[in-house]
Amino acid sequence: MEEPCEGTLANGGAHGEDAYARAGVDIAAGNAAVARYRDVLGAWRHPDQLDAIGGFGGVFRLPGDDRRALVASNDGVGTKLLIAAEMRRYGSVGADLVNHCVNDILVVNASPLFFLDYLAVGKLDPDVAAEIVAGCAHACRAHGCALLGGETAEMPGLYAPGHFDLAGSIVGVVDVAGLPDPASVAPGDAIVGLPAVGLHTNGYSLARALIPREEWNAPMPGSATTYGDALLAPHPSYYETVRAIQAVARVKVMAHITGGGLLENVPRTLPNNAKAIFEQRRWAVPAIERALVTRGKLSVEERYRTLNMGVGFTLVVPLADAERAVAAAPGASVVGWIEAREDDEPQSVVHPERDAT
Amino acid sequence: MEEPCEGTLANGGAHGEDAYARAGVDIAAGNAAVARYRDVLGAWRHPDQLDAIGGFGGVFRLPGDDRRALVASNDGVGTKLLIAAEMRRYGSVGADLVNHCVNDILVVNASPLFFLDYLAVGKLDPDVAAEIVAGCAHACRAHGCALLGGETAEMPGLYAPGHFDLAGSIVGVVDVAGLPDPASVAPGDAIVGLPAVGLHTNGYSLARALIPREEWNAPMPGSATTYGDALLAPHPSYYETVRAIQAVARVKVMAHITGGGLLENVPRTLPNNAKAIFEQRRWAVPAIERALVTRGKLSVEERYRTLNMGVGFTLVVPLADAERAVAAAPGASVVGWIEAREDDEPQSVVHPERDAT
Repeated sequence: MEEPCEGTLANGGAHGEDAYARAGVDIAAGNAAVARYRDVLGAWRHPDQLDAIGGFGGVFRLPGDDRRALVASNDGVGTKLLIAAEMRRYGSVGADLVNHCVNDILVVNASPLFFLDYLAVGKLDPDVAAEIVAGCAHACRAHGCALLGGETAEMPGLYAPGHFDLAGSIVGVVDVAGLPDPASVAPGDAIVGLPAVGLHTNGYSLARALIPREEWNAPMPGSATTYGDALLAPHPSYYETVRAIQAVARVKVMAHITGGGLLENVPRTLPNNAKAIFEQRRWAVPAIERALVTRGKLSVEERYRTLNMGVGFTLVVPLADAERAVAAAPGASVVGWIEAREDDEPQSVVHPERDAT
Repeated sequence: MEEPCEGTLANGGAHGEDAYARAGVDIAAGNAAVARYRDVLGAWRHPDQLDAIGGFGGVFRLPGDDRRALVASNDGVGTKLLIAAEMRRYGSVGADLVNHCVNDILVVNASPLFFLDYLAVGKLDPDVAAEIVAGCAHACRAHGCALLGGETAEMPGLYAPGHFDLAGSIVGVVDVAGLPDPASVAPGDAIVGLPAVGLHTNGYSLARALIPREEWNAPMPGSATTYGDALLAPHPSYYETVRAIQAVARVKVMAHITGGGLLENVPRTLPNNAKAIFEQRRWAVPAIERALVTRGKLSVEERYRTLNMGVGFTLVVPLADAERAVAAAPGASVVGWIEAREDDEPQSVVHPERDAT
């Protein structure tokens, strides 16, 4: 399925348009495109395609094996690349891409098999290209994942010299019996949140609008780093952490908190009769995101739809397992819980702190 | 493997630089990047990765099944997109992409399972995006291939408002016993060529340099169509044709004639002791490519490295099977043959017609 909430397209819903509109990203157009895609893709579905919970990755029956399925996802790094290009720092964007993809298929419990990268440049600099691909290769190897193929395209006229785009696809494998079941989610379950290190790969059009280039080398208040370092902090992989949690706790459903934030990503994995309640006081917001909230005067709605606000990945576990789960994951905390939901209620609610950020 | 000759990167070798340099594509940089990729990727190889003959697709052992393998490839449409964008004709670029990918994995005999698209735009127009994705979906369905996922990214600042990039990944499956074996190729084998309809997805930076925008709506001499129509003619899929040939002939190795032309793509699938000899008089060159040869005064070397020159896909078959193979494929012809090769000889030679084009 062409995913309604995947990646950069549908970063917001009907709300949250202000922050994005200011940054030149058209949320209404995104939603309209998603609706059109549904029509296009609804015309035919392959019989081996399985339901993909949450839509973070597509699930396809492994040929000749009823017990297992392939899970595939593709993504781009987005306009974080413009910051990397401007600062001429190319080493970490490969990890951004691979780890994003790893986390996406991890939502349906898949382990990576192989990855393919797509690098498009305005003018090919072999050193830069090799540094970018090396970043992909390194992040792949960290997951025992083959970098099975790649395409590098030099396209004068489409990209400015110095600019590039980086996207990629991952394919993993999962036991069909291990696919998460939203129906298992029950009121009283705890939501464990894994810490975000910064924006990861979302909100960069907004960040570029709010933090001008001249400041990227300046120290960021309330942190030991510069704005540029904070903006380019690599998207982490949650693979090992999630496996460590699964070793000690029953994990019911998971969500990768990308574009759309806690408000849009978590509901994708919940049954209609459940809602997620988050309390901001339970976890910390990275300094770079606090800076964006302040500079952009982001409303509560905008914050939690545009940014991850400090939670990069969520896992719903029985309350009885929550303590063990948190203990298995450095920096994790119980960030919220599941409540019963009436049909007219929102499916994800965040209670901000009194002092907002 | 990050492929040395795949797609837009390494469209030429040490030769053929003139035509590309004129179009702003740096062949030397491409070759340097490929060399750097080899270093990067040589550091580690996944144990389930199999040798990928010709490097058109990566081959990965199907988990838990020794007899079959997954084959994956990714590609972009390249600067053909700039022509589509300029002419506001978005319906066929999806087929360009999907069919290119289908042909790539067909080289190792794989049948498509699923595809994922990546669409990046400067400013999201839902109608345009839906038309592009519908083109992908239609081409996928024609192959019984699932459109399993997709990513649409709106990236103001990276792409100009009407510009977009389109790339994608395909995953197929093959019987390991059915992987082509270059060692089976022998002197005297025939090379069957399947007809190209035009440039397919290669040579567009050159074409844009040689055929100015003002002429795209003009009739093309020697043809019933306009330059624009000829430039946007969709990259065909050779899937059904190849399967029809395989039903009546023993196919030893195949090549998809993309960037690098007959001179670079065919050798990728041959053993060192074999060379391919082509005779141009045996097949027709599409009018659009004849126009490029004339306008660009392309040398023989440039023609056959930059353009497909009318052959979109090649199959090496025993001479005894050649007639049956050709009869099974509309428009196909025997375009050349295999000869024994000494170490210092080129591995692909084209004898042009006396009157050149």
